[in-house]
Amino acid sequence: MLTVTRTVRIEWGDCDPAGIVYFPRYFEYFDQCTARIFEAVGYPKPALLEAFDIAGVPLVDARANFRLPSKFGDDVVIHTTIPEWSRSSFKVHHRLMKGDELGVEGFETRVWVGHDPTRPGGIRAKPLPQELFERFRDA
Amino acid sequence: MLTVTRTVRIEWGDCDPAGIVYFPRYFEYFDQCTARIFEAVGYPKPALLEAFDIAGVPLVDARANFRLPSKFGDDVVIHTTIPEWSRSSFKVHHRLMKGDELGVEGFETRVWVGHDPTRPGGIRAKPLPQELFERFRDA
Amino acid sequence: MLTVTRTVRIEWGDCDPAGIVYFPRYFEYFDQCTARIFEAVGYPKPALLEAFDIAGVPLVDARANFRLPSKFGDDVVIHTTIPEWSRSSFKVHHRLMKGDELGVEGFETRVWVGHDPTRPGGIRAKPLPQELFERFRDA
Amino acid sequence: MLTVTRTVRIEWGDCDPAGIVYFPRYFEYFDQCTARIFEAVGYPKPALLEAFDIAGVPLVDARANFRLPSKFGDDVVIHTTIPEWSRSSFKVHHRLMKGDELGVEGFETRVWVGHDPTRPGGIRAKPLPQELFERFRDA
Repeated sequence: MLTVTRTVRIEWGDCDPAGIVYFPRYFEYFDQCTARIFEAVGYPKPALLEAFDIAGVPLVDARANFRLPSKFGDDVVIHTTIPEWSRSSFKVHHRLMKGDELGVEGFETRVWVGHDPTRPGGIRAKPLPQELFERFRDA
Repeated sequence: MLTVTRTVRIEWGDCDPAGIVYFPRYFEYFDQCTARIFEAVGYPKPALLEAFDIAGVPLVDARANFRLPSKFGDDVVIHTTIPEWSRSSFKVHHRLMKGDELGVEGFETRVWVGHDPTRPGGIRAKPLPQELFERFRDA
Repeated sequence: MLTVTRTVRIEWGDCDPAGIVYFPRYFEYFDQCTARIFEAVGYPKPALLEAFDIAGVPLVDARANFRLPSKFGDDVVIHTTIPEWSRSSFKVHHRLMKGDELGVEGFETRVWVGHDPTRPGGIRAKPLPQELFERFRDA
Repeated sequence: MLTVTRTVRIEWGDCDPAGIVYFPRYFEYFDQCTARIFEAVGYPKPALLEAFDIAGVPLVDARANFRLPSKFGDDVVIHTTIPEWSRSSFKVHHRLMKGDELGVEGFETRVWVGHDPTRPGGIRAKPLPQELFERFRDA
């Protein structure tokens, strides 16, 4: 299974008055990592939207467990995989490591959505394309 | 059980290129609501930290289910409760309503932490104070 | 000249490890205030974009002077005016007050832009509509 | 004069409903670059605060000119210099390039501040240390 690994520098502006990462920022890091795993199979986000005519891959569920705090100046490493594909949704798993220790674990469930022709600005789920599975299978 | 209700205007800068709320922002809204429920019992966040000599109420777990997207300009209403207290942690529940419909549901598990005298800058869980329970009970 | 006044609560997540507002957040507050002044003349941002078929009011220049720091839990008051209109651009002025004292002063120069039919996704300046001037004049 | 160069990927979550960078994010990028130039002379931000016993390098003035928009997926390059040092303040200059073109230019004036012993949580300007000048001179 394809794992994408990315190092993230914890920035001053990502931390709160306690000096540690303000927790919504972890969800931003993870969202960026999800974009990276599609990029790793040839689809940076702009290309992904264009190639498959989708509006995005919005979340229906996001969760994180925070085990160890991180501080500004820390360099953490995030490992990202897609452990499960369904018809029009998929799960993403992120492990943020501080050295050898698991600092934060993140879980996303996302939907593959197209533009809904029946409502201006509306979106609706559509089936994941076969080509994408093949890209991940062959990665 | 005390419920705090707050209206949030969805801002342009909270939305992504799909025109809908960038999901980590929901966790920010919910974090602000958690501060509001303590304020409702007499402890705005600065007073909370000072009165009980704590470093904060960091999360060990955060989760959200996204059912309906919201767009910039929308006014949503968030209802917040604390359904469960433990010795040094507590759960927070948020329901973000779009009119009569549940748009996003959020769940937090937070820890009551003090400064750890054995490690500079360190934090560690400590027991929740009796006075706080009384404030919520009497609210 | 129309002045719009708005109270902003400084949130924990808007502050940095020094315990004061992380300065880019001030630009977010000001951007929200600019949306409010158009709303005050009848055009909340979604209606503004739709009524005049514009892509937005992006900035060509933003500036702020930071005189007094603010901390989480503070309630500040922001006064916003549009002191100058040009053919397809305008200036916005924000004064963030801490009680009677000026805490931060912000200056924006924004452009009225439409979709550029010659480039997909492109934008280009267009003349400000007469109706908008009338709305501000009569406010 | 020392120039630090850094590539920044424009993230989906940094962009607004117009599909371009929400302008306060540029100030975040620039703030991160200022941290990088101190790191380049041996002082990552945590070490900077500790070595010189300062509370931070807060801004008294920030300005940016936005010439070209950037979109999610773009990789931009930011060049950062410190063109001017005063007794207890300094100016920082950032040039964000899109290929060969200047996309955004940023200007910061920052103050070197210590903890104010006369007010709990207070800060006050203090003279910049000679050692820092030497580090930049010898870089």
